[in-house]
Amino acid sequence: MSRTIAVLGGTGPEGFGLASRWAIAGETVVVGSRDPKRAQEAAGKIKQRAGANAKVTGMENSAACAAADLLVLTIPFEGHVALLKQLKPEFRAGAIVVDATVPLAASVGGRASRTLGVWQGSAAQQAAELVPSGVAVVAAFQNVGAEILNAEGPVDCDVIVCSDDAEASKTVRALAAKIPGVRALDGGKLENARILEQITALLIGLNIRHKGHSGIRITGLPPAAYSGH
Amino acid sequence: MSRTIAVLGGTGPEGFGLASRWAIAGETVVVGSRDPKRAQEAAGKIKQRAGANAKVTGMENSAACAAADLLVLTIPFEGHVALLKQLKPEFRAGAIVVDATVPLAASVGGRASRTLGVWQGSAAQQAAELVPSGVAVVAAFQNVGAEILNAEGPVDCDVIVCSDDAEASKTVRALAAKIPGVRALDGGKLENARILEQITALLIGLNIRHKGHSGIRITGLPPAAYSGH
Repeated sequence: MSRTIAVLGGTGPEGFGLASRWAIAGETVVVGSRDPKRAQEAAGKIKQRAGANAKVTGMENSAACAAADLLVLTIPFEGHVALLKQLKPEFRAGAIVVDATVPLAASVGGRASRTLGVWQGSAAQQAAELVPSGVAVVAAFQNVGAEILNAEGPVDCDVIVCSDDAEASKTVRALAAKIPGVRALDGGKLENARILEQITALLIGLNIRHKGHSGIRITGLPPAAYSGH
Repeated sequence: MSRTIAVLGGTGPEGFGLASRWAIAGETVVVGSRDPKRAQEAAGKIKQRAGANAKVTGMENSAACAAADLLVLTIPFEGHVALLKQLKPEFRAGAIVVDATVPLAASVGGRASRTLGVWQGSAAQQAAELVPSGVAVVAAFQNVGAEILNAEGPVDCDVIVCSDDAEASKTVRALAAKIPGVRALDGGKLENARILEQITALLIGLNIRHKGHSGIRITGLPPAAYSGH
């Protein structure tokens, strides 16, 4: 299948890291940004890392959305509602939105080791309210740090995937498992995104306290539970 | 130091597992229960597992509290407030309360894969409101499942420890690291207990979905961050 993955916020470190990893894995990737020029520059850098045959381009966010079957949101929480409203007319039918957004209190001047309470329960559930019907929302990638994605070598972190759409969840688990080292787990319904988002705040606190780049692994499940391993 | 550790709710699987592990490690352990007879029976079973020299006794919860320097709460959330009110006159000066309680929605007839919202932020923060001044509250052990503790061999799970009392947190990290396989991490202030409690709900969901006994490991931190390794 010749799907296209757009990473919106793909010029930021988290989005850049994910876009690079998928470009290396042979996926067709669009880097989305408010500024198409910055998006193209980021795409150029990813090509340097992933090789000349890498299928990476850069576009303004709305154009990236219109071009993509699967969109990954790696944006600051303060831009979450506005971006989803902007994208609403652009979605392809049957598109999947993968929300990696974390409502860090830093969005309103607080600490990155705390989250804001989102009325819907989580940023991903907020996204589910803002996408057109027929677009599936999947929560994933909140716990994989940018530094780890942008470093060389395998990623020592599991990706827990939550969605109310079982097929979309499966697609995203397979995509996650394309990143070397990542094991993807079915984390159940989208409502569990609130826990994934809060784990990020905990990991940020651990990073600050212990000067590291932390991730999580889930132990004790049968091998079949983990996609890609 | 000849401290005494009381595990309240020590006849339940989680408390029994922790009490056994610490008895095996040579600690002086009191199993606390509403029913002193059941507490004594559990203590007898722990001796069978830990050996005849194990220092384990069983007592009613209030008596166990009065006898202990460090109390571990492994009780259902629906008994949390009542037990802490009952214990209030019994605490030794300078005692440490380690709260492993998780406010699962199952406490009010809901799912064990969801948590209740606790006004104070978490069960552990609720505990901090209910103990006498001078008693430190530490949140820990929510994410280590009973099945893993009661199985033989090392525990494949990290214990994240949160407290506003740095000394008490350190004491509990050292105690956690006495369980083979466990690495203990400073998870910051007590307010972060809300995240630890919710991780348990996520792990329970994973256990149900994948038929396992899950735990968590934190990756990517320097070795010095982990007590006991």
